[in-house]
Amino acid sequence: MERVFVNLPGKEYEILIERGILDQAGKRMRTALLRRGRAAVVTDSNVGPLYADRVEKSLTDAGFTVKVLTVPAGETSKSAKLLSWLWEEFMAFGLTRTDCVVALGGGVVGDLAGFAAASILRGVDFVQIPTTLLAQVDSSVGGKVAIDLEAGKNLAGAFWQPRLVLMDPDVLDTLSDRIFSDGMAEVIKYGCIYQADFFHALDAMGNRAGVMAQIESVLRTCCAIKAECVVEDELDKGLRMILNFGHTLGHAYEKAYHYETYTHGQAVAAGMCRAAELGVKLGYTPAEVPGQITQIVRKFGLPDRITCTMEDYQAAIGLDKKGQGDSIRLIVLPELGKAQAVKLEKSALFDLIEVEA
Amino acid sequence: MERVFVNLPGKEYEILIERGILDQAGKRMRTALLRRGRAAVVTDSNVGPLYADRVEKSLTDAGFTVKVLTVPAGETSKSAKLLSWLWEEFMAFGLTRTDCVVALGGGVVGDLAGFAAASILRGVDFVQIPTTLLAQVDSSVGGKVAIDLEAGKNLAGAFWQPRLVLMDPDVLDTLSDRIFSDGMAEVIKYGCIYQADFFHALDAMGNRAGVMAQIESVLRTCCAIKAECVVEDELDKGLRMILNFGHTLGHAYEKAYHYETYTHGQAVAAGMCRAAELGVKLGYTPAEVPGQITQIVRKFGLPDRITCTMEDYQAAIGLDKKGQGDSIRLIVLPELGKAQAVKLEKSALFDLIEVEA
Repeated sequence: MERVFVNLPGKEYEILIERGILDQAGKRMRTALLRRGRAAVVTDSNVGPLYADRVEKSLTDAGFTVKVLTVPAGETSKSAKLLSWLWEEFMAFGLTRTDCVVALGGGVVGDLAGFAAASILRGVDFVQIPTTLLAQVDSSVGGKVAIDLEAGKNLAGAFWQPRLVLMDPDVLDTLSDRIFSDGMAEVIKYGCIYQADFFHALDAMGNRAGVMAQIESVLRTCCAIKAECVVEDELDKGLRMILNFGHTLGHAYEKAYHYETYTHGQAVAAGMCRAAELGVKLGYTPAEVPGQITQIVRKFGLPDRITCTMEDYQAAIGLDKKGQGDSIRLIVLPELGKAQAVKLEKSALFDLIEVEA
Repeated sequence: MERVFVNLPGKEYEILIERGILDQAGKRMRTALLRRGRAAVVTDSNVGPLYADRVEKSLTDAGFTVKVLTVPAGETSKSAKLLSWLWEEFMAFGLTRTDCVVALGGGVVGDLAGFAAASILRGVDFVQIPTTLLAQVDSSVGGKVAIDLEAGKNLAGAFWQPRLVLMDPDVLDTLSDRIFSDGMAEVIKYGCIYQADFFHALDAMGNRAGVMAQIESVLRTCCAIKAECVVEDELDKGLRMILNFGHTLGHAYEKAYHYETYTHGQAVAAGMCRAAELGVKLGYTPAEVPGQITQIVRKFGLPDRITCTMEDYQAAIGLDKKGQGDSIRLIVLPELGKAQAVKLEKSALFDLIEVEA
């Protein structure tokens, strides 16, 4: 088993990575939570039929009283409506402050269930069992939970750390190539911003099969990097910003195509390539870096370029949560494996994109 | 001016108490927040017409960009529906992570706006300007914010400390006697649980006019006691429990009459009298204490007795957030001015109430 310890003072927790760990969920939760009680397992209509029975059995065998709550698969479930529904279902189940909520699914389930856990009874214990590569390397680590509003994605939520994260690499086998590569964009990002050796190792793995042959170590590396950023900056005011590499532009692509045409990972992949180019133009990034990122992104079936209009960029960046009035922080790479935030006027960024388009 | 410093490490804030401070809101907020930016002022249809213009002018004069958002007066506004409405309105206003939300109103507005502030963009700065006695001495201090669910009151929310609390005793002059005495129940509670001298001083003040003659000092004493409990126990796991004196039974009375017949304060007043009697029966409380509490409660126009059925008690206490499985912690007074939590089986409590009814 691979383990990552997330050392947030007073909120320490472990990420446990092992094939087949789904069936140990109950035992692991008893050890981490030091109690049993009720467990509300939130899942979705894709993941539930595959894995909910196994998790329910493991929890029941360990002495938990379990209720499985299934939301429709898809981003539209990250809504105020389903949040309210979960709150009422938790209470109908008899949840108390010493019970827990378990998220079994991808990022949508983790974000929705996490915010529900953060807010029901002003916060109960939360356990993540992420079932997509993207959720395993990104959304399940760090405690950011949220729902979407009419006005945009992830606009209402909380910082709510899990008490335990369980990752079972076996569940990745049922993912389509599209959803697997969705997660690979974030995996590649960790190499770009934090560890050039990891970037080159991924480049050498070359494809899905190559990554799966070393998946425990890949997951551990990604989670350890994210955990370091999170421990330094739980509330996203400094270092954690570098995790947004490729995301400012990526969000513009996702939004421009109404979150339908491109996955988050596809948009981030193209956003990283474009951000690397902007870094070169701004004088921060060595000239060869954009080509290196473009090459690896293509290897994993991700786009290196997505086009959208200036209005799309402006609509997205005007609402970016990183925005502080008229300026924005863009993440650039002073070298492969290192990242920094650069404060720019939004208008200067738009000019740069326009010139470069 | 009276000041109470709430010494929560990393989340320190001040409560400022002064007649006319409404007109200094902008200046005080600039000093406390160290910036201006946008301020979303949440108020209700009773308070808004009385004070929103003055607060808006003060904030605008100090350089804030202000939007006033008005919800219907009354407990039904503490809903998921109005929470969603506020979230969308905040975003339409262009709120960013460095802006703030101001609650101008009683407990309903504070709880709703506070939870909205805690969750929009995963949390923005929050300023409380409580306009009822109850909100000034109770709900505006301590960071508990919440909305009601179908399943019960205050079931979804957060712990979210304000950055500043401004209390203007002048606003109490427009309260009806019923709403003033609603707050007096909590004022009396602080004497019961924490400071016998304060209890006797209140007894000597004797009525509303007597209290208003010393209102700054009364508010400071109440807020200082609550702040001490909160600083010791921000997340409500120990000392803060004593603030629930009279509330376990009080909640049963409120719920039994559908939160219509009795105010929160009326229910708490009767709950304190009954809890003091239970304390005597349990052997913790001196025999004269129930009579002392009954006497002061009556002086301030509050009921010392409310009746409800055993089913009402059971329905309310079965859902109490303090409940941990089958046991409950009842707050009793080992002497006037001191409180402690006693763990009881719920069934034993019901037996005691039944015998005693």
